[in-house]
Amino acid sequence: MPKKTTLLYEGKAKKVFETDDPNYLIVSYKDDATAFNGEKKGTILGKGAVNNQMTNRMLMLLETQGVPTHFMEELSPTETLVKRVTIMPIEVILRNRAAGSICKRLGLTEGIFFDRPIIEFSYKNDALGDPLFNDDHIRAMKLATDHELNLIRAMTLKINSAMIDFFAKLNINLIDFKLEFGKDNNGNIMLADEISPDTCRFWDKTTNQKLDKDRFRLDLGGVEEAYEEVFRRLTN
Amino acid sequence: MPKKTTLLYEGKAKKVFETDDPNYLIVSYKDDATAFNGEKKGTILGKGAVNNQMTNRMLMLLETQGVPTHFMEELSPTETLVKRVTIMPIEVILRNRAAGSICKRLGLTEGIFFDRPIIEFSYKNDALGDPLFNDDHIRAMKLATDHELNLIRAMTLKINSAMIDFFAKLNINLIDFKLEFGKDNNGNIMLADEISPDTCRFWDKTTNQKLDKDRFRLDLGGVEEAYEEVFRRLTN
Repeated sequence: MPKKTTLLYEGKAKKVFETDDPNYLIVSYKDDATAFNGEKKGTILGKGAVNNQMTNRMLMLLETQGVPTHFMEELSPTETLVKRVTIMPIEVILRNRAAGSICKRLGLTEGIFFDRPIIEFSYKNDALGDPLFNDDHIRAMKLATDHELNLIRAMTLKINSAMIDFFAKLNINLIDFKLEFGKDNNGNIMLADEISPDTCRFWDKTTNQKLDKDRFRLDLGGVEEAYEEVFRRLTN
Repeated sequence: MPKKTTLLYEGKAKKVFETDDPNYLIVSYKDDATAFNGEKKGTILGKGAVNNQMTNRMLMLLETQGVPTHFMEELSPTETLVKRVTIMPIEVILRNRAAGSICKRLGLTEGIFFDRPIIEFSYKNDALGDPLFNDDHIRAMKLATDHELNLIRAMTLKINSAMIDFFAKLNINLIDFKLEFGKDNNGNIMLADEISPDTCRFWDKTTNQKLDKDRFRLDLGGVEEAYEEVFRRLTN
């Protein structure tokens, strides 16, 4: 088993460590939470453990459905061994219903359904505030080829279908989610991100109660309880 | 000839009048100038006349190249009869090189060339600040069908090719431009906008001097002279 060596990167919610094997990294999930591009900061007790274990279950599920991911092995409640990939600087957002930034940006009512899922691309760049951009910008900036974008779009739709079905059985509606993809040395693109209440919007099917990071963003209370509730349904 | 009746709409740079024929409108170009979503205001003497006459020449040129437009007849130096259409709430921006908002938004150096033109869509909504959006948003908001978007994209690329060639002969590089399209009662989509230094960026091929509204936006001086210079080359 590769051993953790030096800290490669510390993000808002995760640390990433190098290992003694150049092909693998170790991701360590934190309880720290930020929102609104870092303006709001806090701690959500137990979040690291929920997000790590939930992500791993989801990535294993997606692998069985033909979606390649960086997942290798869960090392502890908060740490996981993953393949080392280069993260593409494109945040992929899929929206089944309107919530969050899109409502203010385009004047849409929260909760409205879209006939087809909306896929948005954002330029992963904190200094610029992760601005929305489109296929033409991505090609012009040489961040991905046409073929790679088609692949990412197809994988994102497949992940959406799999996740909608999976969460429906937990009495949860999947409203939207964010993904990042990575590329290995051979140019293979794979999902290389968490799938958790930090990166997805989950609404209880019966009550529409928010079971995700919006409870933290919007000061709704019951933040820890929401993460635990999703995890409880997932592990029951 | 249809006669001007009531004011239908007054915009930042134009007035639009109804006529006694429901199929036609009269556009009256103003010397007023605004920038940064209305935050900066001013007057550019002679702009109305330049923009009206330049637009009409460009639309006539585009018609000969198979691009349908709303142009009917020039009525005076600042007024033109056009077909009455419903303006689609989508601003189409085509960029051959980086300039203006895209530089700050995506961290690009002004003047860099794109391998292929970038087409951006903005939601035409002053209250929301004309936010950038993509094909998926447009379809979800039912602002255009897939077919209509393909048509608009193809027309925009055709307009770009025609305009690049035309302005090259005037020793001008076409950096970028904004277009709006309208739909008639039969669902026919046509170009229904001005083509002028208000809506295009023109750089002198030899000196890279800006010959467009950026002289007003950026307080570069020589604003009137720039509009006149483009018009002089156009009419020589």
